[in-house]
Amino acid sequence: MGDQLIPEAGNGLMGRRAFMTATASTAATLLSASAAGAQRTPWMRAPGAPMSESGVPSRHEAGLQRVLFASAPGTTGAGTSATPHEHLDGIITPSRLHFERHHAGIPDIDPDRHRLMLHGLVQRPLSFSVDALHRYPIVSRIQFLECSGNSAMMTAPEPPRLECGQLHGLLSSSEWGGVPLSILLDEAGLMPQGRWVVADGADAAVLARSIPLEKMMDDAIVALYQNGEPLRPANGYPLRLFLPGWEGNASVKWLRSLRVTDQPAMTKDETSKYSDLRADGSAEMFTFEMGVKSVITTPSPGLILDQPGLYQISGLAWSGAGRVQSVAVSADGGRTWADAQLDAHVLSRSVTRFRTAWQWNGSPATLLSRATDESGSVQPSREVVMRDRPPGSYYHYNAIQAWQVSDSGEVSNVYV
Amino acid sequence: MGDQLIPEAGNGLMGRRAFMTATASTAATLLSASAAGAQRTPWMRAPGAPMSESGVPSRHEAGLQRVLFASAPGTTGAGTSATPHEHLDGIITPSRLHFERHHAGIPDIDPDRHRLMLHGLVQRPLSFSVDALHRYPIVSRIQFLECSGNSAMMTAPEPPRLECGQLHGLLSSSEWGGVPLSILLDEAGLMPQGRWVVADGADAAVLARSIPLEKMMDDAIVALYQNGEPLRPANGYPLRLFLPGWEGNASVKWLRSLRVTDQPAMTKDETSKYSDLRADGSAEMFTFEMGVKSVITTPSPGLILDQPGLYQISGLAWSGAGRVQSVAVSADGGRTWADAQLDAHVLSRSVTRFRTAWQWNGSPATLLSRATDESGSVQPSREVVMRDRPPGSYYHYNAIQAWQVSDSGEVSNVYV
Repeated sequence: MGDQLIPEAGNGLMGRRAFMTATASTAATLLSASAAGAQRTPWMRAPGAPMSESGVPSRHEAGLQRVLFASAPGTTGAGTSATPHEHLDGIITPSRLHFERHHAGIPDIDPDRHRLMLHGLVQRPLSFSVDALHRYPIVSRIQFLECSGNSAMMTAPEPPRLECGQLHGLLSSSEWGGVPLSILLDEAGLMPQGRWVVADGADAAVLARSIPLEKMMDDAIVALYQNGEPLRPANGYPLRLFLPGWEGNASVKWLRSLRVTDQPAMTKDETSKYSDLRADGSAEMFTFEMGVKSVITTPSPGLILDQPGLYQISGLAWSGAGRVQSVAVSADGGRTWADAQLDAHVLSRSVTRFRTAWQWNGSPATLLSRATDESGSVQPSREVVMRDRPPGSYYHYNAIQAWQVSDSGEVSNVYV
Repeated sequence: MGDQLIPEAGNGLMGRRAFMTATASTAATLLSASAAGAQRTPWMRAPGAPMSESGVPSRHEAGLQRVLFASAPGTTGAGTSATPHEHLDGIITPSRLHFERHHAGIPDIDPDRHRLMLHGLVQRPLSFSVDALHRYPIVSRIQFLECSGNSAMMTAPEPPRLECGQLHGLLSSSEWGGVPLSILLDEAGLMPQGRWVVADGADAAVLARSIPLEKMMDDAIVALYQNGEPLRPANGYPLRLFLPGWEGNASVKWLRSLRVTDQPAMTKDETSKYSDLRADGSAEMFTFEMGVKSVITTPSPGLILDQPGLYQISGLAWSGAGRVQSVAVSADGGRTWADAQLDAHVLSRSVTRFRTAWQWNGSPATLLSRATDESGSVQPSREVVMRDRPPGSYYHYNAIQAWQVSDSGEVSNVYV
C-alpha cells in the first residue's frame, strides 16, 4: 500500500493513500466510548445455525442473481443469463453466477454413459470415458470466458438503460482444469493433412464449431473442473472444450466429438451465427480471439452515490491476446486520464481487477476506462468500433464504456 | 508442455510427456470408424433444462459434500466440516465446500444492523457500517485458510482410516477481498502504546483473539468478498478478519470489534484452546504462522487404482511464510524423490497445485510429498513433528503424509 501513488489528474482521481490523509472520513462515524461493546444483537444471544454438507449464500443476498434473456418468449432453454458484475468483486466469478448461453437448454448427462470421440484424420480413432480422461495429466488456470455477443446491446442507436451485468455480463472468469488437447491428439496420431478440428456438443442443438488445429495443439483443454469442482451442467458437465481467450461459443460444452479435418465444416453455428457482417454484406468468419476490453463495475447504473466524497472506482479488464498491461481511467469524459492500480493477480487471458480512488465533488461526471494489453493493443472508442459496422452486426463489441454520474449521484449508460 | 521434464527416479515417477510416448494408452479405447457419430443419447433428443438465476452442481455429483465432525453428539453448531480434497482439483475451493469451524453455530446477521467498532488505544474511536466499508479501497488475493487443528487426527498412535479431506480438509483456498486494516487503523489514529488488537466475533460464543498490531498493519484485511461474491454466512457474513498465512481461528468471523491494547487479552480462545502444549506441561502461545505443508490428494484413500499403468499424482502444497518453492514426491516411501511440476499459478500464502506422472507397476508402493517454501523451510517428517509432543497436543501438525498403495490398488493412510 502507498508505494504506488497515482498522479492526481485534476479530475478527482487520486492515489490510494488519499483515503488516509483525508482529514475526516465521510464513511465511518465516530464511536462514543460508552457504546463500544454495549450492543448485544439478537444473533449474539443464542447459538446459530448448524454446519452443512454444502454451503449457501446469505438469505440477505438472495437478490444477487443472474439476469435471464430468453431468445424468444417461452424459449427458456435458449438464450443467455448474465453475471451481475455490479455486485461482485475480485477476479473469480462464483460458479453459480457464471454466464450461460444455451441453444437448446442444459442436457442432463449421465457421466458414466458419456464418451468423447476423437476421430477423422488420425491414425488411431479413440474413445474416452470421463474416468479415462482423469488418468491423463491435468492443467489448471484462471481464465475468462466471453460470449462473442457480449455487450451486443451497445450497438443500438440509443444507449440501453441497463445495468453493468445486463450489458456486459456474458463475461465470467473461473479456474478451468482439464487435459491438454495436444496430449490426446498426439495419442491419436495426427495425419499430415489435418488442419482443423470440428467439435460437437451433446446438447439437442448439437452445437458444432471448426477450430484451427494450431489452437488445439497450443493451449486448448478438455475441461473437467471449474473453480475446483467438477463442471456444472450449465457449463458443460461432464466435460467441455475450453479455448483460452477465444469467443465463448467455440469452447463447445458437453463435448462429445472431435473430428480432425482438412478444412472447416462450415456448421450452422459458424455461418448463420457468430460471424461478423461487413459493410458490403459479406461475412467475416472465424474471428476467434476476443479483443482487449474493460468496464467499470462500480460505480455503475443502479448503484447510487449518496453524497459527494471519496469513492473507489473498480472494474475488470481482459484481453484474448494475453495479459492486461495497464488500464487508464477518466472521470471527465476522456479529457484527462490516470493509470489505475491493478490487483495482485495479473494473469494471462484472465480478467484483471483495476481500481482507483475518486473524489466526487457532486458535479456531473463521466467515467471511462481504457485497457491496453501486453501485445500493445488499446481498447478502441465506440466511434471506431461502430465505423463501417452495418445494422445487425453486433458480435465482438469491445468499445470503451462510459457511465454518466448525475449531480444527484445517479449513474447511467451514455455514448461519448 | 514437455519443456519441463522431470528426471525419472527409477520408482515409476515420470515426466509428463511420458503420457504421449507410451506406445499404447491404457485409458482410451480404440473407436471403430462406424461408431463415430452413431450414438444419440437421450439428452440429445430433446431440449434440456432452462437457464436459472443461480446455478447448481450436477445431480450426478450430489455426493460431493463436506464431511461434518460435531464437537459432541447433538452440538450441530459446534465442530468442523471438512473440504473433500480427494474429489477436487485446482487451487480454488468452491465456497460451498470451504471448511467450517464454529463454536456456537452460524449467526444470521442482518447486514444493515451490523457494525464494526474500532476502539481502545486510538485517537478517534470509529464505527463502520457494511455500506461504509464499501467506500474504502479493496484489495483481493487468492490465499489459503487453515485451521490450526487441521490434520490433528494424525497425532493418534495408529493412523486413522479416513480419507484425505477428513484428515486434512480444514484447509481451503479462496479469493478474499476486503479493506486493508492499515487504512482503518490509520484513520482511527493509533496511540503510541498500542501493540495488540483484540478482535471479537458477533457469534454467540463471542470468539475473541489477540493479534499483534504489526500483522494488522502489514497484510490483514476486513474481508467482504469470497470468490467474487459477498462472504457466505459460514465464513463470516457480512465481514470477517482475514490474516494471510495465519491459523484460521485468528481470522475472526462475523467481526464486530477491534480494540487496540498494549498487551494480549488472554481470551478463552487463546488460552484454553489454540495453544500448543509443551512436554513440560506449559503452553506455547501465539503460534500464528502455519508451517510449510503438502498432501497428495489423488491417489488417496477411497480412490482405487483399478489396474497397473500411468497415473497422475496430484496434490496441494502451501506455507504461511509465502510462496511454495518446490515439492518433492516419492513413490517408494522416501528412498528416492523427484521434483513435481507446479501448476501455472504459484501465489504467496495460497495453495499451489503440484503434479507428476507415475507408472504404477502393480506392486505395493508408498507415496509421499514434501514441500519447501521460499523461506527455505522444508516440511518435516512425522517423527520430527511428534518428537517431544505430549498426549493431547494436536495443533499445528504439518508432517509429511504417506499413502500406501496395496497390490490390489487400494490406498490407505500409514505412518512411515
